[in-house]
Amino acid sequence: MPEIVIALDAMGGDNAPGAAVEGAIAALEEWKDARVLLFGQKGIAEPRERLELVETTEVITNDEAPMLAVRKKPGSSMVSAILAVKEGRAQAMVSAGSTGALLASGMVRLGRIPGVERPALATIIPSRKRPFLLIDSGANVDCLPKYLVQFGMMGSVYMHRILGVDQPRVGLVNIGAEAEKGNQLTKETHKLMCAQEQFCFAGNVEARDIPSGDFDVVVADGFAGNLILKYTEGLAQALVGMLKDEIQSSRKSMLGAAMMKDAFQSFRSRMDYEEQGGAPLLGVNGAVVKAHGSSSARAFKNAIGQAYRMVKTGMVAEIEKGVREIAQAEKKEETP
Amino acid sequence: MPEIVIALDAMGGDNAPGAAVEGAIAALEEWKDARVLLFGQKGIAEPRERLELVETTEVITNDEAPMLAVRKKPGSSMVSAILAVKEGRAQAMVSAGSTGALLASGMVRLGRIPGVERPALATIIPSRKRPFLLIDSGANVDCLPKYLVQFGMMGSVYMHRILGVDQPRVGLVNIGAEAEKGNQLTKETHKLMCAQEQFCFAGNVEARDIPSGDFDVVVADGFAGNLILKYTEGLAQALVGMLKDEIQSSRKSMLGAAMMKDAFQSFRSRMDYEEQGGAPLLGVNGAVVKAHGSSSARAFKNAIGQAYRMVKTGMVAEIEKGVREIAQAEKKEETP
Repeated sequence: MPEIVIALDAMGGDNAPGAAVEGAIAALEEWKDARVLLFGQKGIAEPRERLELVETTEVITNDEAPMLAVRKKPGSSMVSAILAVKEGRAQAMVSAGSTGALLASGMVRLGRIPGVERPALATIIPSRKRPFLLIDSGANVDCLPKYLVQFGMMGSVYMHRILGVDQPRVGLVNIGAEAEKGNQLTKETHKLMCAQEQFCFAGNVEARDIPSGDFDVVVADGFAGNLILKYTEGLAQALVGMLKDEIQSSRKSMLGAAMMKDAFQSFRSRMDYEEQGGAPLLGVNGAVVKAHGSSSARAFKNAIGQAYRMVKTGMVAEIEKGVREIAQAEKKEETP
Repeated sequence: MPEIVIALDAMGGDNAPGAAVEGAIAALEEWKDARVLLFGQKGIAEPRERLELVETTEVITNDEAPMLAVRKKPGSSMVSAILAVKEGRAQAMVSAGSTGALLASGMVRLGRIPGVERPALATIIPSRKRPFLLIDSGANVDCLPKYLVQFGMMGSVYMHRILGVDQPRVGLVNIGAEAEKGNQLTKETHKLMCAQEQFCFAGNVEARDIPSGDFDVVVADGFAGNLILKYTEGLAQALVGMLKDEIQSSRKSMLGAAMMKDAFQSFRSRMDYEEQGGAPLLGVNGAVVKAHGSSSARAFKNAIGQAYRMVKTGMVAEIEKGVREIAQAEKKEETP
């Protein structure tokens, strides 16, 4: 059985390197045909079966300008791990370090899948029914319609291959359900999405319906996507805070809240999308997962598992095929 | 004491004309120097002191294409009420009818304040600390940086004049707090906002901090603004639904929830921004308020009161002054 080799940036994230090393060990216990290359400082881990430490000295921090940091620190744990994929020593890469630097090193050092216009960051978000994939959640702030069509295809491939969703329903974030609604970008994207046959386009999704769970893939440009992602976090916190204010205004309701402790806890864990693994960077030429900055050992393990499945299911090759089919269909239309 | 005359579209909204008429009567009881011109079908109200029915036969519905409806139904209750302001028979206008048609009739029939590039819809949103104004919440889906600067100024004038906020803090919705973050639109807008002196620009506001209440005016293009507005509604509902699921999973937590009934109710009324009056359409040449489609008599009364204060405080003239000052400052910079 051929091994799946995962390059792990052990120095990125708030709990690095401890949580990264622990997560890697847990992952190796679960996936017996996996091997982890650990990129980090000397002495952070004892060598053991299927775990190899590749010593690096530099670390890219969150404060650094991403592109500059990637250029100035080619020997950093993050860039070294990316290069391992580029050079074929690993098939997947996981990092909890700077999102900007990971995007930059993914695009510049690893490169894109042939035909992909712009790689995009995708994030799993919980909803009442089932989780959905938000793509692009922040990699590309200025987009063209054709980028968004590719985002829809890549997101669809991810949900199908990695989460086993049959015929994922793809929605386009817009300010109205009707085809003619929206700004220049979404109106043109809607047309292109209707014309393609590579994924199941289920139409515009209005912001109020995003949390409904009726869509498996929710497509937006990186500005709107990042807005949705961050606002979800901020609004959930604000609502909980406002509810707390009300609860603390009476003894009776405080007692009631104490009785609901389990329900609140269970609610919180349902909302905890950080534990669902990491955010895949789709469209780069390899399986790359951005783990949350505050990742615990469990989150690292889940992110490694996610990267493992991305390799195992041949996701990159399927995205390449999807891109080619979209391009061929466009050509056909141009020359009838 | 000169009267303030408010033109009310009595046929717009789910509860029209009953709630509109009732709201008008309540408003007249509170504001003794107000007069209401009621635009609607024959017989919807008995004439009384300071209340005059102006008979109209047509109604614009929510299903109609806005611009077309405004053109085809010049005698509708909405367009007639707008024309009353245009012709000086009223100083303010309130409608709970189609948002699109109100935007269209406001822009086309009433016209813009001299110098205003694009009128914008502004919405009051509750937060844990204090409510803030979101502008533009949906009128202009494709914007230029100079529009957004005017939105900031108009929002600042509104919060100062109508809600009495001293030196309102204006924030620009962006995907990072730093000046260099964002897309083309927000990066350029950030520069322009820093350069002006007409309002207090407090920098970028990240989506996760929007509900913090640290900003009095939150500026976004109409696409992002509408996204924020509608997502607030959808996410709050989804979170409450998910919490309900958890509560109903055990007897103990159901009992706890019953004890928290008052807290939940108080929480709901704090979130109920629909009752805070309506959304002012800022930048048109008159005081125009879009009341919520589901407005009750109380909501109509509040929206009328809001329009009344917009006239009373000379808001339109102050926006005109602000626009002039921004233009003069720009000219000065061009010719040093």
